[in-house]
Amino acid sequence: MLRLIPVFCALTAHVAFASDEPFRKTIISVERNLGGGQPWNVRGREITPDCPVDWSVFKNTYQGGRQEGVESIELNNGKLFIHVIPTRGMGIRQVWCGDVLLRWDSPVKELVHPRFINLQSRGGLGWLEGFNEWMCRCGLENSGQPGTDRFINNQGDEATMDLPLHGKIANIPASEVELLVERKPPWRIRLRGRVDERMVFGPKLELWTELWTEPGSATFHIEDTVTNRGAQPQEFQMLYHCNFGAPLLEEGATFVGPVREVTPFNAHAASGLDGWTRYAGPTTGYVEQVYALRLFGDAQDRTRVMLQNAAGDRAVSMAWSLKELPYLTVWKNTGAVADGYVTGLEPGTSYPYNRRIERKFGRVPKLAAGESYRMAVEVAIHADRDDVRPAAEAIRSLQGGRETKLNREPPEIE
Amino acid sequence: MLRLIPVFCALTAHVAFASDEPFRKTIISVERNLGGGQPWNVRGREITPDCPVDWSVFKNTYQGGRQEGVESIELNNGKLFIHVIPTRGMGIRQVWCGDVLLRWDSPVKELVHPRFINLQSRGGLGWLEGFNEWMCRCGLENSGQPGTDRFINNQGDEATMDLPLHGKIANIPASEVELLVERKPPWRIRLRGRVDERMVFGPKLELWTELWTEPGSATFHIEDTVTNRGAQPQEFQMLYHCNFGAPLLEEGATFVGPVREVTPFNAHAASGLDGWTRYAGPTTGYVEQVYALRLFGDAQDRTRVMLQNAAGDRAVSMAWSLKELPYLTVWKNTGAVADGYVTGLEPGTSYPYNRRIERKFGRVPKLAAGESYRMAVEVAIHADRDDVRPAAEAIRSLQGGRETKLNREPPEIE
Amino acid sequence: MLRLIPVFCALTAHVAFASDEPFRKTIISVERNLGGGQPWNVRGREITPDCPVDWSVFKNTYQGGRQEGVESIELNNGKLFIHVIPTRGMGIRQVWCGDVLLRWDSPVKELVHPRFINLQSRGGLGWLEGFNEWMCRCGLENSGQPGTDRFINNQGDEATMDLPLHGKIANIPASEVELLVERKPPWRIRLRGRVDERMVFGPKLELWTELWTEPGSATFHIEDTVTNRGAQPQEFQMLYHCNFGAPLLEEGATFVGPVREVTPFNAHAASGLDGWTRYAGPTTGYVEQVYALRLFGDAQDRTRVMLQNAAGDRAVSMAWSLKELPYLTVWKNTGAVADGYVTGLEPGTSYPYNRRIERKFGRVPKLAAGESYRMAVEVAIHADRDDVRPAAEAIRSLQGGRETKLNREPPEIE
Repeated sequence: MLRLIPVFCALTAHVAFASDEPFRKTIISVERNLGGGQPWNVRGREITPDCPVDWSVFKNTYQGGRQEGVESIELNNGKLFIHVIPTRGMGIRQVWCGDVLLRWDSPVKELVHPRFINLQSRGGLGWLEGFNEWMCRCGLENSGQPGTDRFINNQGDEATMDLPLHGKIANIPASEVELLVERKPPWRIRLRGRVDERMVFGPKLELWTELWTEPGSATFHIEDTVTNRGAQPQEFQMLYHCNFGAPLLEEGATFVGPVREVTPFNAHAASGLDGWTRYAGPTTGYVEQVYALRLFGDAQDRTRVMLQNAAGDRAVSMAWSLKELPYLTVWKNTGAVADGYVTGLEPGTSYPYNRRIERKFGRVPKLAAGESYRMAVEVAIHADRDDVRPAAEAIRSLQGGRETKLNREPPEIE
Repeated sequence: MLRLIPVFCALTAHVAFASDEPFRKTIISVERNLGGGQPWNVRGREITPDCPVDWSVFKNTYQGGRQEGVESIELNNGKLFIHVIPTRGMGIRQVWCGDVLLRWDSPVKELVHPRFINLQSRGGLGWLEGFNEWMCRCGLENSGQPGTDRFINNQGDEATMDLPLHGKIANIPASEVELLVERKPPWRIRLRGRVDERMVFGPKLELWTELWTEPGSATFHIEDTVTNRGAQPQEFQMLYHCNFGAPLLEEGATFVGPVREVTPFNAHAASGLDGWTRYAGPTTGYVEQVYALRLFGDAQDRTRVMLQNAAGDRAVSMAWSLKELPYLTVWKNTGAVADGYVTGLEPGTSYPYNRRIERKFGRVPKLAAGESYRMAVEVAIHADRDDVRPAAEAIRSLQGGRETKLNREPPEIE
Repeated sequence: MLRLIPVFCALTAHVAFASDEPFRKTIISVERNLGGGQPWNVRGREITPDCPVDWSVFKNTYQGGRQEGVESIELNNGKLFIHVIPTRGMGIRQVWCGDVLLRWDSPVKELVHPRFINLQSRGGLGWLEGFNEWMCRCGLENSGQPGTDRFINNQGDEATMDLPLHGKIANIPASEVELLVERKPPWRIRLRGRVDERMVFGPKLELWTELWTEPGSATFHIEDTVTNRGAQPQEFQMLYHCNFGAPLLEEGATFVGPVREVTPFNAHAASGLDGWTRYAGPTTGYVEQVYALRLFGDAQDRTRVMLQNAAGDRAVSMAWSLKELPYLTVWKNTGAVADGYVTGLEPGTSYPYNRRIERKFGRVPKLAAGESYRMAVEVAIHADRDDVRPAAEAIRSLQGGRETKLNREPPEIE
C-alpha cells in the first residue's frame, strides 16, 4: 500500500444522516495521517437527539512533563465516566459511577507517555514506571513476569531473549481509534482502537479493542480481538490487569467468586491462604500475595466475580467466558496508601508467571496464520445493597454449593 | 558556540534571485531552532521556470500512533518519486518510477518514530520493530549483528558492550536538512541531511547525506560523507540496507552482478548456494539465506549490480566504487508476504557479522581525527526490456568472462 | 485525585497586584495540563518597575533533530544569564557573566530530549549520549557508576539490577515549573521545578529544585529538596555534576579548596596525585583522573571551593554546607577540545562509585517515610582579580594552615 500522497483529514465529525447508519468519527488514524490535534467533544443531544440520556465524549491531549502528547478520551454515558488512554494501548485510567470509583492511587501520578518507558530497565521491570491505570492489558507476546525465554531468531535458530514484565502492549500507542454511536435504541456507544505489536522476525499481532456501553447504563463491555497477521503460527498471551484501590478496597472488603481451586503463587502467598478472600486495610510493608484461581462457570462456561466493600453496599463485578479467559489471578497488594494500596483482579489466557513456565503448563495459546482470538469482559458497577445482593447471589449460584479446592503449596514451576 | 539568543526562522523559502546561486531552503535545523511545522511544498515551475520538467518537493509531518512527529519529504523529479524520512536517519521509505517500485511490504506498517525504538530490546534486536524502509543505513559505530564487542571506556580501560543490530544511525533524527536546487541546466535537485552519532567517551561521528537527482531522470544518487569529529582515531562501519519486495521481486527474479567470489554466511545459506542468484516466490517458513560477495569492477574499481524481474523487463541497478564500498551482502528472505517477502542488496564497508568478527578480518575502517570517508551509490530504474538489456550487458562486461569463485563452506568466523 | 474535568490554563501571566505578593507564573504543570506552548517572555520593567536592574525571563521550545520539544528557560538577572532546561531534569545548560562562562564544549551538541536517551545502552552508559550541561544532577536512586546492585523486588525478595550511570534524574522532564519574583527589594527571582522519580515497587522520590538570584547579582543559588513520598525508608543519592571548560579551564587553571584529604579514584588518578590541583591544557588522549575529597568547613560546616584561570583574574566559586553535601569529587578530564575538554567539581551526598560501594562506606543516605533532605549550593562568579582574591582568602582561612592528607593509593573498594 503506497502512501506518497497523504490525505489530510479535518477534525470535524463525519456525520452520517441516515438514521440506521451509526455516527462515526475517526479520532486517531495512521492510515489517514490523523493525530491528536485540538480538543473537541461530541454531545448526545446533537448526535442522538431522541435518546433520553445525554452522553458525551471529550477528546484531549495532555501537556507537561512525561504526559506531554498523551491522548485522552473521556466517555460519559450519562451514568458512567470512563477515561480511555489511546497512547497507552487503549488502557482505562479510571471509571466512576457516582461514588463508586474504579481506580487506585498509584505512586506514579502522571499518565506517562510510552516514549519515556524503557521496558528493559531494572532487569525488565521498567513497566512499573508508568503503571497507574485501573485497567491495562498485559501482552501480547508475553504477559507475565520478566526473565529469559526462548524464541526463534532470523536465522531460524532457537535463541533466548529477556521478556519484559507484562509485555509491551500497554506501552504502544493505538494506531487507529474511532468512535461509533448507534442512532437508534439502545444508542450503543462504541470506542474502538487498534494496537499493533508487529515486527520483522517476531510477532505480527494486531489487537482490536472495543469498549462499549449504552447511555444511562452502569455496565460497560471490553471486547478484544487478537489476530495473528503473520504467515506462521504465533503464540500470544493476554491478561486484563484490573486494579482497585480505595474507597472500594478497604479493611474488610472481600473478593467474591465461584472458585473451583485456588493456589498460592509462592510460599509467602501460601502463608496468607486462610482468609485469602478478605482484604486488610493499608498496611505499611505488606508484601504482595498472589493467588492463581480456577473458577466455576455456568453451562456456557460463563463466570462472574465481584469485589465488594466492607459494608456490602458498593461493588464491582466482572463477567466473562472461561472459554476465552480460563484463568484468574488475584493480586493482593494492600500496602500503605503512599506505596499503592491496591488489588488486581486479572482474568487472562494465562497466569502471570514467566512465559516459559506458562508454556510448560499449557497456558500459552497459539494462533495459526490469520487466526483471531476473541475475549470479552463485562464490568458492572453496583452502587447500593440492593444492587450488590443479586450479583452475589448469581455468583453463589455459579458455585452451586461445590467445594473450593485449597492448594496449600505453591506449584512446582521449574 | 553560545545560543542564548535563539533565532526564529520563518518557514518561508529563502529565495536567491541571482540565477547562478542555487535555490536553498532549510527544512530542519537544530542550529536555527527549526523543526517540523506546517506542511509545505515547492514547485519546479516557480523555482526553475525554464526547466521543461515540473518537479516538486512536499514536506509533511506524520500524525497518529507511533508515527506521530515523523518528518517526511516527498521528492518528485517528474519521473521518480522518492520518499525520504529525516526522522529515521534520512532513510528512504520508497521510490517509484511508473510501475517499478523500490519498496517492500514489511510487517511493520507505520513509519515508527525512533523514540519508540529500544535498540537493546530482544537481546539487541529492537531495530526490527521499526524496519520497513527501502533503504536504511546501518552504522555508524557498528553495522552488523548484535552481540558483545570491546570498547575503551572513560577510564581508558577495555570494557565490553552489547552492540545492537545494525547500529543506531537509522534511528537518529537528522539535525540539519536542506534542499538545494540549481537554477540552470541540469537543474540538479539536492536534498542534504546531517545525522550526528556523537557522545562523550564514545564515537563523535557526523554523517552528511546527500540525495540528488535531475528533473526527468530515472536515476538518483546517494552521496554520503562520514567524518570523525573526535580528536582520536575512530572506527566506523556503513552498510546500505537496500530492500526490494514485490512486484519487482518475484518467483524467477534474479540477482545480476560481476561476482568474483561468493561465500555463504552460514551452513543454511551454504545449502542454497547452487542457484543462489535466482529468487523463489513467497515461501512460508523460508529461513533467510545470506551471501557475502566480492565483486569485479572496472579500471577505476567501479562496479554495478542489478535485480531484475522474471520477465527481464523491469529492473533496478546500483553502481558504486569498490574503493568506497568493497563488500556486498545479498540477503535472501523470500518468506511469506505477511512475514516480509524481501531481498536486500547491501553494499558496505563491511559484511553484517558482528563488529568483532569484521575487525578480525580487517573490514572495519578507522578514521583519523578529523578525517572523512566518502561513499556514493547510484541507483537507476530500468522500466522496459530495452533499458534492462544495456545494464545487463554492462555488468557482463565487468565480469569479463571471469569465473565466480563459489566457496561451499561458510567462513570460520570465531 | 480525580482529573476527569481538566482545567485549561491560558498562557497569560497570573499577576498578583498586592505589592507584597510575589509575581507568579506557572510555566509547566502536569496538574493544570500546561506544557510548552508558544514562546513568551517576562520583563522586569513590567513586573518590578521600581527595580533599577531590568531582568527578564524568556521561555522557548526547541525544534529539530533530537532537541524537538525540549523546553528552555533563559533567565537574565541583568548581570547573569542562566539557561535552564526543564525537560532535562531542570539542569543548567550554561551560565555567563560578561566573559566568564560556566559551560563546556561537549561532543554532544544538541540539547537531547530524554526520549532519545536509553540509559541502559552501552552497558549502562547511555547517559553519555545527552551529557553537555554545565550542571546536571546525578541521582536520585543512584548517582554513580553503572553496575550491579541489589534491591528489594515486588515479592519482597532481594534481587539485582543494573544501575545506569549517574541515575535517571537528569533525563526526567520536570512536571511542575513556576517562576516567582518578589515585588520588593531585593526583588528575588525564583525558578522552581518539580521532578518526580517515582514508580511502583521502587523509589517514590520527589525533587523540588529552586534556582534563585537577585537582579544585578553575580551570584545564584541552587536549593533542592528531595522527599521520600513512599511509606517506607528509601535510599537516595545526589551529585551536582558541575562542568567547566574553556576559557575558564585552561593550561594553568587551578582548583582551590580547603582540602582535608584527597584520595585518587584509581591507580591512574594516583599517578597524577602530585600537582592534582593544577590543570593541563587540552591533551589528546588524556585519560580522566578523578579525586575524592573531604573538605574543611567553618564552625557551621560551611565550605567553599573555587576554580580559577591561569592568570587568577577569572574564577567561579561554589559554597555549601558539609552537613548537606559532605563529599566533593574532582573530575579532571582535560582531553582534546573535540573530545570534551572539561573538569567537573561535584559536591554530593556520595562519591560516584557504584552505589553498592558507596553503601558499604556509609555514603548512601536513607530517608524515612515522608522525610525530606535539603541541599543548597551557592555559585559566585568572580570577574576580575579584586573579586577573585577575597574568595581565595576565604578558602585559605577555611584551611586554616592545616595539612591536606594525601592518600597515595586508591581505596580498596571491593
